[in-house]
Amino acid sequence: MKRIYLDYAATTPVDPRVAKAMEPFWNENFGNAGGLYEEGRRAKEALTKSRETITKLIGAKPDEIIFTSGGTESDNLAVFGVANAALQVVARAVVSPSSKSDFGTPKKSDFFPGDLVVGQPSGVKPHIIITKFEHHAVLTPCEQLAKEDFDVTFLDVGENGIVDPEDVRKALRPETVLVSIMYANNEIGTIQPIAEVGKVVKDFRMAKEQILKDLASPTGVSTRNFSAEKYPCLSKFDTETFGKQYPYFHTDACQAAGYLDLNVNNLGVDLMTVNASKIYGPKGVGFLYKRSGVKIKPQIIGGGQEMRMRSGTENIPLIVGLAKAFELAQAEKDSETARLVPLRDYFISEVMKRIPKVVLNGHTTKRLPNNINVSILDIEGEALVLYLDSKGISFSTGSACTSESLDPSHVILALGKPYEFAHSSMRFTLGRSTTKTDIDYVMGELPKTVEWLRIVSPISVDMNASGMSHPEAFAGENLRVKAKSKSYKPDVLLK
Amino acid sequence: MKRIYLDYAATTPVDPRVAKAMEPFWNENFGNAGGLYEEGRRAKEALTKSRETITKLIGAKPDEIIFTSGGTESDNLAVFGVANAALQVVARAVVSPSSKSDFGTPKKSDFFPGDLVVGQPSGVKPHIIITKFEHHAVLTPCEQLAKEDFDVTFLDVGENGIVDPEDVRKALRPETVLVSIMYANNEIGTIQPIAEVGKVVKDFRMAKEQILKDLASPTGVSTRNFSAEKYPCLSKFDTETFGKQYPYFHTDACQAAGYLDLNVNNLGVDLMTVNASKIYGPKGVGFLYKRSGVKIKPQIIGGGQEMRMRSGTENIPLIVGLAKAFELAQAEKDSETARLVPLRDYFISEVMKRIPKVVLNGHTTKRLPNNINVSILDIEGEALVLYLDSKGISFSTGSACTSESLDPSHVILALGKPYEFAHSSMRFTLGRSTTKTDIDYVMGELPKTVEWLRIVSPISVDMNASGMSHPEAFAGENLRVKAKSKSYKPDVLLK
Repeated sequence: MKRIYLDYAATTPVDPRVAKAMEPFWNENFGNAGGLYEEGRRAKEALTKSRETITKLIGAKPDEIIFTSGGTESDNLAVFGVANAALQVVARAVVSPSSKSDFGTPKKSDFFPGDLVVGQPSGVKPHIIITKFEHHAVLTPCEQLAKEDFDVTFLDVGENGIVDPEDVRKALRPETVLVSIMYANNEIGTIQPIAEVGKVVKDFRMAKEQILKDLASPTGVSTRNFSAEKYPCLSKFDTETFGKQYPYFHTDACQAAGYLDLNVNNLGVDLMTVNASKIYGPKGVGFLYKRSGVKIKPQIIGGGQEMRMRSGTENIPLIVGLAKAFELAQAEKDSETARLVPLRDYFISEVMKRIPKVVLNGHTTKRLPNNINVSILDIEGEALVLYLDSKGISFSTGSACTSESLDPSHVILALGKPYEFAHSSMRFTLGRSTTKTDIDYVMGELPKTVEWLRIVSPISVDMNASGMSHPEAFAGENLRVKAKSKSYKPDVLLK
Repeated sequence: MKRIYLDYAATTPVDPRVAKAMEPFWNENFGNAGGLYEEGRRAKEALTKSRETITKLIGAKPDEIIFTSGGTESDNLAVFGVANAALQVVARAVVSPSSKSDFGTPKKSDFFPGDLVVGQPSGVKPHIIITKFEHHAVLTPCEQLAKEDFDVTFLDVGENGIVDPEDVRKALRPETVLVSIMYANNEIGTIQPIAEVGKVVKDFRMAKEQILKDLASPTGVSTRNFSAEKYPCLSKFDTETFGKQYPYFHTDACQAAGYLDLNVNNLGVDLMTVNASKIYGPKGVGFLYKRSGVKIKPQIIGGGQEMRMRSGTENIPLIVGLAKAFELAQAEKDSETARLVPLRDYFISEVMKRIPKVVLNGHTTKRLPNNINVSILDIEGEALVLYLDSKGISFSTGSACTSESLDPSHVILALGKPYEFAHSSMRFTLGRSTTKTDIDYVMGELPKTVEWLRIVSPISVDMNASGMSHPEAFAGENLRVKAKSKSYKPDVLLK
């Protein structure tokens, strides 16, 4: 049976052109890039070329690209890297022998100029801003940091799934060290206003810098007042307490890399995550763009590869594959966008037309060209996945990255929707092989499957009801009966 | 020109059988193992099968294998994972509201039974034991920890490059949380007595456990005295202070995997690092064996893959390649050993016979079948590499993993040899393609190249001199003249 794969946001097949580019590096040019001899030099050359390919596409310099094992590692490196570099300064502050007291204010001379000095001395924790619907590779590290030495603001994203740059501005504090907002959401595909947030972050840094200049000059106070009016939190800004280089701005661009412009200067980002497995490249490789001068603490250390930022023998075949996949993705992004947007909108309108009680999750147009995410109420997401799978259709419920968990999608919940909407959210993501014929086939199977599943479902949600997120919201006088009946077993569908 | 590659310890080509095993997973079975549909299930199945293949070969259980991006990540996960898990308990101790004072002794009930409780309360830091010549992926994390909250013992390895299990026993302390000793050294190939060290560590843990039992019983003190006699450090052993599950024992088996038995029960290890790129598998993938119950803090977090121990989409093609490579390596280890040992010994004896002032580094027989490491005195290692490269021979000076650095090999220094021996150490590592003809070709080129390089060298070391490690040791009345002469330029050799 021909299969219709509609989970391109989970992972993509490797483009044959990418596989071909990797081919010579398995057992022909297999050298360790650290070797001085020919095999090593050839490996190093491939590494350098791959780095250059990427830097050109994003407007960066070669030493600003750190190759990693993928999106999760890059995201972790951005978050933990910035956080731990900031903490190192904190530690210096706390243990400083010249401190006034055990926890008194350390002297300016104890620190690098402009360094962050927070923690016990002032009782202020370094601060991070992210959205509520970041990928788990950013969210989980931030949740962990929030339990340790950091304050984290989890921004709302509104019912459309788009963060408001004004909310970022309001959340900024003198001690904010990192703002991390994904470029496009992996579940609902909504595109975030990264360039606008980039401007907000830059403006805030400039305000801090201006105040520092004013403090250094005996006369200049007007600008300080101006900046403090715009950013009230800066009115008590203290050079000895907070570093002017912060906050850094990071974006996870994994889902965006196939469709959007990734020029770091246009976006105004200091750190950017990209991986290969979402853009028809191999799994297990990605990069973190890190603007020169941005301080991170390396997370994987040893031989000192990647400018000491990420140790381990350089994975030349996969790095070559990443560069090739990224090059192709960026070259074809406009034509793919033009081809997929009508298919996406056709899919959405057909689903809405053919199936009752369906809600589109995320903004209607400010979303990736390949993303359809709908809550099909009253049905069990996993059952629909398994049933359509038997008809040759692959898609996912919530995010495939966390499907081992039965927790409802944190992304749908972040839109302010009740648990029932999260539990019944389905993600169909189109890709290079998707055609209108594929979608028509899906439309032939999906509505009747939903109808059948609803017959056997014990749940009937009132789409406009409030308080839907507790058992009373389920319209089941015979809920328990149905839930116990044999027909309500997803796995029966596979037989 | 045919090339003779003699740097198999740096990295190996991918075996065609491994490349073939990976092939279907690029764009045919490309699914995300988190997907519930067919592509996902097939990926999951490949993952499960690979895990099983490995567990069978090392005598482990499937949930004891954590796939990573390679040796460095696995080593880091072992060291930082154990260290940070131990510190979490420390943190709980320090912040405990029921503490007697800010830094007073917390109550037993505040902790998990048997947990480590060290740090400020007792002023005792958690302790780690490694050797001086561990791979940088273990050494650097330990150096970092030593600057932070840990005490680290760096054991000597003697002039033969083999650690004495008795030294490990003597170094053990009640607060030791980790012993990490590589199975075979990556530079000099010496094989460490891992099984014996495993017994020492186990015996120490049993002594602690016995004392705990005795403390719980009002009568049993004899065993305590016995244990305390054997391990004087345990005489003040306190249940509330040090956990009985520690120390864990980790071994980096990357270099050993192609030649030695890796059964974790025979070795008595709790954690073991293996990667693919040293055993004819792909770069960028490895695993960490973690015995059930061993507590580590995950280092890369997010989607919760690999039993929550290592997040990121599972890299199925490379994991399949790793399993295949490991299976082949273990199946062929005895025949390869039998084939390579005579070649290795032939190489060593020919070098010693044909070139004066050569010293073999490491034990003569307790070394990997493929490793030759010699200090060829009075010559510039890099020059020899480049010159022989032009003759089609590839090998490395020191460890390729760190060849971007010009620091002398820490491994040769750990043998107690002076800087001059470290600077002139050369590593030739044989592999599946190596023949006697290859070695004869090398013997045709190597001696005359060394002779020529010695003529242009400003250095002449007295092999038996003491105090060789400072400028006076160089026997150059005209040292400065020669060093400034044009003939003393390695790059001139390439022209």
